[in-house]
Amino acid sequence: MNELEQALDIIARGTDAIIKREDLGLRLQGGGPLRIKAGFDPTAPDLHLGHTVLLNKMRQFQDLGHQVIFLIGDFTGMIGDPTGKGVTRKALSPEEVRENAQTYASQVYKILDRNKTQLRFNSEWFGKLTAADMIKLAGHHTVARMLERDDFAKRYAAQQPIAIHEFLYPLVQGYDSVALACDVELGGTDQRFNLLMGRVLQEHYGQIPQIVLTMPLLEGIYGVNKMSNSLDNYIGIDEPSINIITKTMKISDALMWRWFELLSLEVSLDELDTMRRDVGSGALHPRDVKLRLARELAVRFHDSASAEKAIAGWHAVVRGEGDTSLLPLQELAVHAEGLRLPALLVAAGLTTSNSEAQRKIRERAVRIDAVVVENTQCLFRPDFEGVLQIGKRHFARVRLIRH
Amino acid sequence: MNELEQALDIIARGTDAIIKREDLGLRLQGGGPLRIKAGFDPTAPDLHLGHTVLLNKMRQFQDLGHQVIFLIGDFTGMIGDPTGKGVTRKALSPEEVRENAQTYASQVYKILDRNKTQLRFNSEWFGKLTAADMIKLAGHHTVARMLERDDFAKRYAAQQPIAIHEFLYPLVQGYDSVALACDVELGGTDQRFNLLMGRVLQEHYGQIPQIVLTMPLLEGIYGVNKMSNSLDNYIGIDEPSINIITKTMKISDALMWRWFELLSLEVSLDELDTMRRDVGSGALHPRDVKLRLARELAVRFHDSASAEKAIAGWHAVVRGEGDTSLLPLQELAVHAEGLRLPALLVAAGLTTSNSEAQRKIRERAVRIDAVVVENTQCLFRPDFEGVLQIGKRHFARVRLIRH
Repeated sequence: MNELEQALDIIARGTDAIIKREDLGLRLQGGGPLRIKAGFDPTAPDLHLGHTVLLNKMRQFQDLGHQVIFLIGDFTGMIGDPTGKGVTRKALSPEEVRENAQTYASQVYKILDRNKTQLRFNSEWFGKLTAADMIKLAGHHTVARMLERDDFAKRYAAQQPIAIHEFLYPLVQGYDSVALACDVELGGTDQRFNLLMGRVLQEHYGQIPQIVLTMPLLEGIYGVNKMSNSLDNYIGIDEPSINIITKTMKISDALMWRWFELLSLEVSLDELDTMRRDVGSGALHPRDVKLRLARELAVRFHDSASAEKAIAGWHAVVRGEGDTSLLPLQELAVHAEGLRLPALLVAAGLTTSNSEAQRKIRERAVRIDAVVVENTQCLFRPDFEGVLQIGKRHFARVRLIRH
Repeated sequence: MNELEQALDIIARGTDAIIKREDLGLRLQGGGPLRIKAGFDPTAPDLHLGHTVLLNKMRQFQDLGHQVIFLIGDFTGMIGDPTGKGVTRKALSPEEVRENAQTYASQVYKILDRNKTQLRFNSEWFGKLTAADMIKLAGHHTVARMLERDDFAKRYAAQQPIAIHEFLYPLVQGYDSVALACDVELGGTDQRFNLLMGRVLQEHYGQIPQIVLTMPLLEGIYGVNKMSNSLDNYIGIDEPSINIITKTMKISDALMWRWFELLSLEVSLDELDTMRRDVGSGALHPRDVKLRLARELAVRFHDSASAEKAIAGWHAVVRGEGDTSLLPLQELAVHAEGLRLPALLVAAGLTTSNSEAQRKIRERAVRIDAVVVENTQCLFRPDFEGVLQIGKRHFARVRLIRH
């Protein structure tokens, strides 16, 4: 395999689509560094593993010698939602944007190479644009094409209002690619329409259309739903190593391969195939596959020492030996009279209902500090502290505090 | 009838709709002069009677003491059509806009009182607006509501492209009312949607919504189609008196009442009712009704002397007496061999086909210089000059010139 093919393989890893792959090959052949853009909201959420799928891809481009542009879409962020409906879209001040950018930067440079990253703000060019320029921009696309975007189509069909400025935002995003003369734009699969807009506008402005590369949305730790700050199924990249380890160890065997493909920067697809074969033949335990990924993630976001310490903590619970005080402590506020065991298990997020908790207790699957508890009437009052566990993998270290 | 009711009656004359009439009453009661806006394209066509329907209404507001704003929409005119498709919508330079405005002004002050007219250009405020302001403006309306506009709905249903900037133009027009803090906006019935947009935006910007007053579109001299520069069914306000007289005298008896209501500034609706009764009873000839309107128009756009001279010219033909040299001369280019009579009648626009011309000749309805001509083979060579006539009212003074 030659160098170009190797580069293409690295770039293609985990992607949902590359439009168009043959064009990407041609541009890579060109030799010079390509301009790679990915756009981010100026609202600065706490980054989680889901966000890192894209950041990893950006990092891979950097490692291949390309110029990565981390673009913060502050122009629209500073406009907010003019309909005045969305409380989540209030206008940000330039100061807030700058602060958020700092928060972002401090997180993303755990993955991106700071020296090979251009941090840009699209207010740089949009701040200079006039109303007339905006109207001209809007002349480059049609209403019908815009209504083909999946979410617009659904809302229009359901007679939910779409404000006209919402039609302008994809054009703004597309114009960013013109302003930056991008070769490649990266985004989640949900961004496909907006990324393609960049191609349309670049053609209108006499540029060669960028290559669009979409990445799948990572499922959260429970599978099914995508990882999201609002679903409590995420691993934040600023979480302590012990959280990264314990949460990663919770994922299903099926999900583990997908996480590996999308999250690992160290294990090649060839190695991954070997591991898959070994798990199939029984030569490798799935737990060890997860542990390898969990360790890589903890090392990436913290360091080797804290990763090993967290793994030791995890073993302490799973094997019922060693120091559990390393586990993250969850504080639960309760009334003075306390909680019975089934309610406690629900409160700790280990079961979703009282009846499930009772069944687990009857099955002798519930332990407290490594000791099986069979009494459903058992009462826990404020100041109780201990490790609750269901089966081997599901546990939580909790302390009850008075409400 | 008190003064307010009288004012309301004058304003309501000929209108298609007033939204809302009771609000207009309240504002008129307020006493102070109202701000009346009507918007015009910066493309400056030659004004015809159709345009004057709106101008008359503006003049009536002026006569009632209100402030009339003649707004030229130069902002969008200077953008043109960014899709690059419409040859008719090429961008105008500021110089072209100024020249066109001069042409306009020289024509409209034949109707409007120059001293009571504010001539404004919407580039005054839109020139200062940023792209961000435009996006905010676009947040005040929804895609679905915009697609309710008749022409958009039809094009969308027929899968004809609508460029997104076309959704911005009604917002621009609506914002003009905000910038000018208008009390009333006037426009043709085809402008109803855009005029209502002014109400929507004024509310968003904390103003009391303007009153919208729509005027019907005047039919051309042949009825059915609206008067239009492109249909050759119009009377231009710069045409000589003889044209105004002869063309007005051509209209049907049915159309005459509508023209009177929309075009006369001198004959009240009460007087018009009396005339209608008199025509019904046979006490008044419809010809004299038309002649009264024709005279009023010729006097308005020229003067009394030229109007009387033109009427004398018209009588000369219709009654077969007097000087026909006052009639407008139409030059027709023909081959050396000339034209036979039926072809000549078609070329002069008096019949639409050879067969119709032959029928009229057979019916003895065709005269040349007041003499009936029955020979369909009669040939007319270059340099022929004379008055062709079919029946009483349809005639043309023509000269054949060599092709």
